[in-house]
Amino acid sequence: MSGHKLCMIPGPIEFHEDVLEAMATPACSHVDPTFVPIFGECIELVRKAFLTSGQPFIICGSGTLGWDMTAANLVEAGEEVLVCNTGYFGDRFGECFETYGAKVTHVRCPIGNATAVEDVAKALETKTFKLVSITQVDTSTGVLNRVKEITKLVKEKSPNTLVAVDGVCSLGAEEFRMDEWGVDVALTASQKALGVPPGLAVLAASKQAIEVFKGRNTPVPNYYASWTRWLPIMNAYESRKPAYFATPAVQLVKALHVALKQLTARGMDNVFEAHREASKKFKDTLESWGLKLVPTSRDVAANTMTAVYYPEGIAATDLLPKISAHGVVAAGGLHVEIAPKYFRLGHMSISVLEPERGHLDTTLKAVEGALKENSYTF
Amino acid sequence: MSGHKLCMIPGPIEFHEDVLEAMATPACSHVDPTFVPIFGECIELVRKAFLTSGQPFIICGSGTLGWDMTAANLVEAGEEVLVCNTGYFGDRFGECFETYGAKVTHVRCPIGNATAVEDVAKALETKTFKLVSITQVDTSTGVLNRVKEITKLVKEKSPNTLVAVDGVCSLGAEEFRMDEWGVDVALTASQKALGVPPGLAVLAASKQAIEVFKGRNTPVPNYYASWTRWLPIMNAYESRKPAYFATPAVQLVKALHVALKQLTARGMDNVFEAHREASKKFKDTLESWGLKLVPTSRDVAANTMTAVYYPEGIAATDLLPKISAHGVVAAGGLHVEIAPKYFRLGHMSISVLEPERGHLDTTLKAVEGALKENSYTF
Repeated sequence: MSGHKLCMIPGPIEFHEDVLEAMATPACSHVDPTFVPIFGECIELVRKAFLTSGQPFIICGSGTLGWDMTAANLVEAGEEVLVCNTGYFGDRFGECFETYGAKVTHVRCPIGNATAVEDVAKALETKTFKLVSITQVDTSTGVLNRVKEITKLVKEKSPNTLVAVDGVCSLGAEEFRMDEWGVDVALTASQKALGVPPGLAVLAASKQAIEVFKGRNTPVPNYYASWTRWLPIMNAYESRKPAYFATPAVQLVKALHVALKQLTARGMDNVFEAHREASKKFKDTLESWGLKLVPTSRDVAANTMTAVYYPEGIAATDLLPKISAHGVVAAGGLHVEIAPKYFRLGHMSISVLEPERGHLDTTLKAVEGALKENSYTF
Repeated sequence: MSGHKLCMIPGPIEFHEDVLEAMATPACSHVDPTFVPIFGECIELVRKAFLTSGQPFIICGSGTLGWDMTAANLVEAGEEVLVCNTGYFGDRFGECFETYGAKVTHVRCPIGNATAVEDVAKALETKTFKLVSITQVDTSTGVLNRVKEITKLVKEKSPNTLVAVDGVCSLGAEEFRMDEWGVDVALTASQKALGVPPGLAVLAASKQAIEVFKGRNTPVPNYYASWTRWLPIMNAYESRKPAYFATPAVQLVKALHVALKQLTARGMDNVFEAHREASKKFKDTLESWGLKLVPTSRDVAANTMTAVYYPEGIAATDLLPKISAHGVVAAGGLHVEIAPKYFRLGHMSISVLEPERGHLDTTLKAVEGALKENSYTF
């Protein structure tokens, strides 16, 4: 760890030592009697973390693979999809749907805003959508979207429409109640709030989503992301039986097992509350220095990360290397229209849940020091 | 490592301590200035390992994702594909091509045989194929296919036809000279002879393959596996510049870097020869005990693994748990027609290249002991 800089970007995040230890466990067959129950328990633990009785899928790949799983398994060519678009990730998820032949409508809003529920209502009047997608936390702007409200609206106006939540920078940290809210697909990547190095796409599908998948008119137009292939595998592992379609990432699954046990043992309500509190304190401090957040109000600001504008006259190249010199890695801007104007900091998982590590204080001190070195007036 | 049983299946294999250490490195941004050159070097090292000047792709996923990359990027709906099929993996690769709309013809042969070059010649007379696939080592039978000869034939008879080699249980161990032999796609998974835990699909595409990809008439019908998305990313990292499409599996890429440096430092000719020698000795011993190999002759037997029939009167449940009790994990049969009749042992990477570890002797002793405990007469 000597020389290690705190990785305080919105993922990959800092990992627990026990998680990293699991990454280094020696070779183990994917059908080994010691591994099968670990994979099986992971499936059960995903349900606990997402608060769902739905069907988890834990597949080796980046979070992006979760988009392919959603688009390829649930939408057929020519069907309508509504993307609640708050930035970079809405654009990309839309492109993914189009790749599989969907007709995509975007509900857009100004940068720093969350998707307006009334705009979704208007869009729902125009046609019947097979699926509505929402990015819970838009990692490009630090905006928190209103998943509960939008899902409620969609299910009232159009009960057959599926709601898919890209929870890549939220699941395991932001309040998310899959079954209670009526969400049909929840997807994330291991390296975000779940606290596991990158390499696993983690997704859960509601009973309604699985029914829609099973009732398809056409075969799934993807091989590796096909639930036709993976559903029997997930069912087998959950029944503590080995099965084979493609070799799972054994070490990453073992690491996920450690992380999910730690996370769910806290109780998800406590996890949600801790992230809300830590985020408030973090943002209060930055704002007390006169910095301006990218989200237009605290109501629509994520609790897992903070996107903040550089002060007038200070550029990315002035600030980020100096923050790094203080031992903290921050991320630059990502939203194409404002990328050079802001930076991003993550606050998830052990950085929030184990405050004794001092990650957030160290991060704030690094930002403060870097600002001072730029002669910023507080 | 206490209580660790040697994982001597045909992948995942035993991993070097330095590779496992890289798996446990703490959080690091995928665009970190320390990570970018590591990823860039990995791309260069794949070229060295595959003996090619082609374009590597290192993507987070199981080896199966390499099939999707091949099928989705190089074959368009309605085009003809010829699968040299020696068992389970030919069947599955064929299904993958069909998923993307290809018309698939299989050249089959009896179990334990390699695909006959003359059968491929006959098939090539019947129509023009966009692509011919060959599984270099069929992990389901332990057969080594004649990649060099078949590729030569295809390129003579039909120069525009691409040759794709599934080298999942061969690349980094079996003789393979991508450019010299004229192969267009070589793909593998990290957990085989490359010696890295599962989680990376590693592929290289020839200039001809990249030209075919660029000349497509239709867009790539897959998002996560699309070279349209990944080619600029691979080019950026190789130029030591960060880029983003989907978060790479940072720890696995670091582990791959360690493993590829170790492997290529030996010289690939030495690596090929070491696997040939170790395999010969291993098979000689098993045959000297009266056991029968699944491959019909040594000419068509893989050097990375051995598939061997149980002796008359001894079943999987008699032998495999006893081998395991001796501290060695072996794999059962996989080819659906003979699955209960044989078992499989892998011999790749450090188990071959670092004989001082004694993996192969320990494995043979475990098999010998288990046979004795079944009152087998040597």
